[in-house]
Amino acid sequence: MTGLAAQHAASPAADRDPGSGHVEFRVVRASYRHWQLSCDGPVATLAMDVAEHGGLREGYELKLNSYDLGVDIELYDVVQRLRFEHPEVRTVVLTSAKEKMFCAGANIRMLASSTHSWKVNFCKFTNETRNGIEDATAHSGQSYLAALNGTASGGGYELALACEHIILVDDRSSAVSLPELPLLGVLPGTGGLTRLVDKRRVRRDLADYFSTKAEGLAGEKAVAWNLVDEAVARPKWDQTVAERAGELAAGSNRPIGATGVALSPLDKHRTEDAVSYRHVHARLDRGAGTVEITVTAPPEPAGTDIAAAHGQGADFWTLAMTRELDDLILDLRTNELELGTWIFKTAGSSANVLSHDQLLLDNADDWLANEIRHYLKRTLKRLDVTSRSLLALIEPGSCFAGALLELALAADRSYQLRGVFEDVDADAAPAAITPGPMNFGALPMGNGLSRLQTRFLDDDDAMVAVRAESGQPLEAEAAAALGLVTFVPDDIDWHDEVRIAVEQRASFSPDALSGMEANYRFAGPETLETKIFGRLTAWQNWIFYRPNASGPDGALSKFGTGQRAAFDRKRV
Amino acid sequence: MTGLAAQHAASPAADRDPGSGHVEFRVVRASYRHWQLSCDGPVATLAMDVAEHGGLREGYELKLNSYDLGVDIELYDVVQRLRFEHPEVRTVVLTSAKEKMFCAGANIRMLASSTHSWKVNFCKFTNETRNGIEDATAHSGQSYLAALNGTASGGGYELALACEHIILVDDRSSAVSLPELPLLGVLPGTGGLTRLVDKRRVRRDLADYFSTKAEGLAGEKAVAWNLVDEAVARPKWDQTVAERAGELAAGSNRPIGATGVALSPLDKHRTEDAVSYRHVHARLDRGAGTVEITVTAPPEPAGTDIAAAHGQGADFWTLAMTRELDDLILDLRTNELELGTWIFKTAGSSANVLSHDQLLLDNADDWLANEIRHYLKRTLKRLDVTSRSLLALIEPGSCFAGALLELALAADRSYQLRGVFEDVDADAAPAAITPGPMNFGALPMGNGLSRLQTRFLDDDDAMVAVRAESGQPLEAEAAAALGLVTFVPDDIDWHDEVRIAVEQRASFSPDALSGMEANYRFAGPETLETKIFGRLTAWQNWIFYRPNASGPDGALSKFGTGQRAAFDRKRV
Repeated sequence: MTGLAAQHAASPAADRDPGSGHVEFRVVRASYRHWQLSCDGPVATLAMDVAEHGGLREGYELKLNSYDLGVDIELYDVVQRLRFEHPEVRTVVLTSAKEKMFCAGANIRMLASSTHSWKVNFCKFTNETRNGIEDATAHSGQSYLAALNGTASGGGYELALACEHIILVDDRSSAVSLPELPLLGVLPGTGGLTRLVDKRRVRRDLADYFSTKAEGLAGEKAVAWNLVDEAVARPKWDQTVAERAGELAAGSNRPIGATGVALSPLDKHRTEDAVSYRHVHARLDRGAGTVEITVTAPPEPAGTDIAAAHGQGADFWTLAMTRELDDLILDLRTNELELGTWIFKTAGSSANVLSHDQLLLDNADDWLANEIRHYLKRTLKRLDVTSRSLLALIEPGSCFAGALLELALAADRSYQLRGVFEDVDADAAPAAITPGPMNFGALPMGNGLSRLQTRFLDDDDAMVAVRAESGQPLEAEAAAALGLVTFVPDDIDWHDEVRIAVEQRASFSPDALSGMEANYRFAGPETLETKIFGRLTAWQNWIFYRPNASGPDGALSKFGTGQRAAFDRKRV
Repeated sequence: MTGLAAQHAASPAADRDPGSGHVEFRVVRASYRHWQLSCDGPVATLAMDVAEHGGLREGYELKLNSYDLGVDIELYDVVQRLRFEHPEVRTVVLTSAKEKMFCAGANIRMLASSTHSWKVNFCKFTNETRNGIEDATAHSGQSYLAALNGTASGGGYELALACEHIILVDDRSSAVSLPELPLLGVLPGTGGLTRLVDKRRVRRDLADYFSTKAEGLAGEKAVAWNLVDEAVARPKWDQTVAERAGELAAGSNRPIGATGVALSPLDKHRTEDAVSYRHVHARLDRGAGTVEITVTAPPEPAGTDIAAAHGQGADFWTLAMTRELDDLILDLRTNELELGTWIFKTAGSSANVLSHDQLLLDNADDWLANEIRHYLKRTLKRLDVTSRSLLALIEPGSCFAGALLELALAADRSYQLRGVFEDVDADAAPAAITPGPMNFGALPMGNGLSRLQTRFLDDDDAMVAVRAESGQPLEAEAAAALGLVTFVPDDIDWHDEVRIAVEQRASFSPDALSGMEANYRFAGPETLETKIFGRLTAWQNWIFYRPNASGPDGALSKFGTGQRAAFDRKRV
């Protein structure tokens, strides 16, 4: 029986929608319910040990290391902490604390009883966390080794696919499998299909067979098809895992003798109409369907000594601001579905933002500077795949410079005031944006290009022109001439033009907006990552919504009931 | 008023589903109802003149050059004929015979009253035809010039986007627009979103604005944003169009003084359970949900003189077979939705297939040889994007060689018999496949790679090994060792193994199969074309299925009623 199939012994279907209620993404390590982390010098062991009765919602039991959003929130937290709090860790051995079961994938009762939007949002976050595992391997010298000491089924195997090396125990029962299609009528949508053929280069016809064989493959055959890297018998298991962990660690550029930075609890204040942190403030307007998000610049410049940043730790502005923005994005995406337009503003000193950028870039070899930059990169990527319309309003007193200019570049449209608001402060400095070194490749999107490159694609002249203005504040007309902002209304037109844009956005079909934005935001090359969020996710969303999966007679609904799903057999 | 908006004066919604009834894709030029073609030396003018009451189905009127599948079937036919029957034509001026209206896009009543599968299939065919226009420009020296003598709205503008050069009349009323999102709650899904940002490099924020502005843009602004190449006032219209047509023609490599090949009516015989042509035969098994498609080899070798192929014209095997296969794919895709698995077989002489390939490749500079190869390429691409499971069965007497080997390489899985069927003919030559020169780049997929390259991606050794066997018949074990086939059962296992594969396929969710195949078939690089069929189409399908578009209160349903759509405002 596959791990996934074995889930059907779970409790009766939920009465309550897992999508209801507020979800909090902040966790502290002491409160983990589903993961055990132990560090031994350069090797950390992260063991999945899901608490059956620890579901985020009622109505399902997380048997056999199946997971729900709550399990994945903890996984995201530990992946982050390993990068910041454990500079000594070079290999993370991802394994299971259960007997003969690595992970049975996403909990099916949970999926079957979830709203469409919950399923989609859950998969997006899950995908981002798996991408983060690959990001740690690629950019942080912290490699993940999947030590599958039992069956890895569905999302469990997809989790392994995000690791650099996969070892499967060879015990005549443990297998890897993607049973979603044959058993549930959905796709292995958390990167599974894409990673098989595009990352591990499994031949498409073999991948086809594997993905229709619910029980999966094991042992040498799984190795021969490159589904796993090694199949190792129990007697040699511990030794082999230790050897591979050591080999991965030996190739790492993690620092020697460094002290980690504690990710202290985020100071967050949430009310019905506001979410506030130290540097990020969000105002929720349920009538208008908008969130106005203001990011404030650091009050002081960063100085030139990276040691000071180490001293500040989680208080270092770029890190603190990024953590707040990250939490806010996750909170709003999950909890505020009807707030369809996010309006970004900034406030404070552009010079201070740029000096923080400069410190990070000048110390690119410093492990903490590297971690902070990549975390900001990942957080901006989260914005790119967020199904909300993003607007940026560039007004006097704002600081869309360097790292914060990325918010305007990530936006679907930006509006920069031509000059000042005469009534507010006629003597203010006119609204300006400032490109900086951080905008020219340090924060790539999922397509591998910077947001500026994606904006201009093969228009090299445009890139050269912007680069020539690096560090220069650009008022509206100059910014528009360089193609950096969308519209530059003056004081007289500003309020009407912005109001109409926001009202229009609220009047359009939310689905069509999600689809349009998902297409326009990713011009240019496609990568593993953009394929996962584009092709794979879009198909999965369609399948999730179809009665063949989610209808009363669909495969998700019928799973575990002993009844067969009834399919509309038309091919679309 | 946009062209699309003006459609709302159309007749009441259809009672009858446009998806019902049999659709025939064969047309003859004399029967065109919607297009006027006139040829004047190197310049052809193709004028859209849609017959209002000429809809393929009842229940809607094709006002304002709006189109349905019937209009597009004729367009596809004329695009094909221009390539084969008019070697002298170097520029095709695509324009309208109506006053002030180039084309109002897909007919909305038709869309609103169509089943989901009809909408999806209609969009797929429409996309393929637009890709074919670009293919003519890129590979045939036959460039399309969009002469927008009136408004091009929605699908009308998307048609223009497939052309090499777009001229818009500058008359204070004619505009280009993509009003799908604001008016209909769906995407410009016939390549519109993708071509704007990835082909014409329209900046994403400008594209965002344009795609939410129902009335579109006109004149110099449309030029400045690169939505069109030129805006030309009426007095200079004829002269400018003629000049541009001449310039495009001057750059063409179409032949001088060549005689076209008439695409004579296809000889097709269709019954309830079979579709037969001369070289292609399909057996429909409604119980099993399968179609068994057998392609037969040419009875004679091709010889070495391309003049003979010109003499045979539409009877030349590769062209005749390709036309038949093309028609069959379209017929089955549109008319046989529940036959979810297509099983490909071949019969006849591999040597004869390969000699036809060789003649075409040896005469790559010959315009007809070039046309035939590219037509075969396009037809195989149609197979790649077909939402049916594709299996290939390689048995004794088959001829999966060169061009026909592509059928096995396009399949999701292939089964090659190890040896012979002892009971049938113990002395037969064992089942073999034969790679040939046609398999190494002459027939690229939409991702720009050959099917072999896509199969092996960066495994260069595998490609070298296959290339070394070019021209050699490969029995099952050799083919499997080279990674060219999926499974190689022997006589004893064959029937059970194939039967189980087919039965399994029929038992799975058709939606999940479509999604899986759409992911696995396109490993490797993404292009404009794969983005259209992957990202854009998958999103559009999801949107089409959502109540915000297609529900009783959705935007498609409410369009033209005077009532606003009621949207579920949750962003997903």
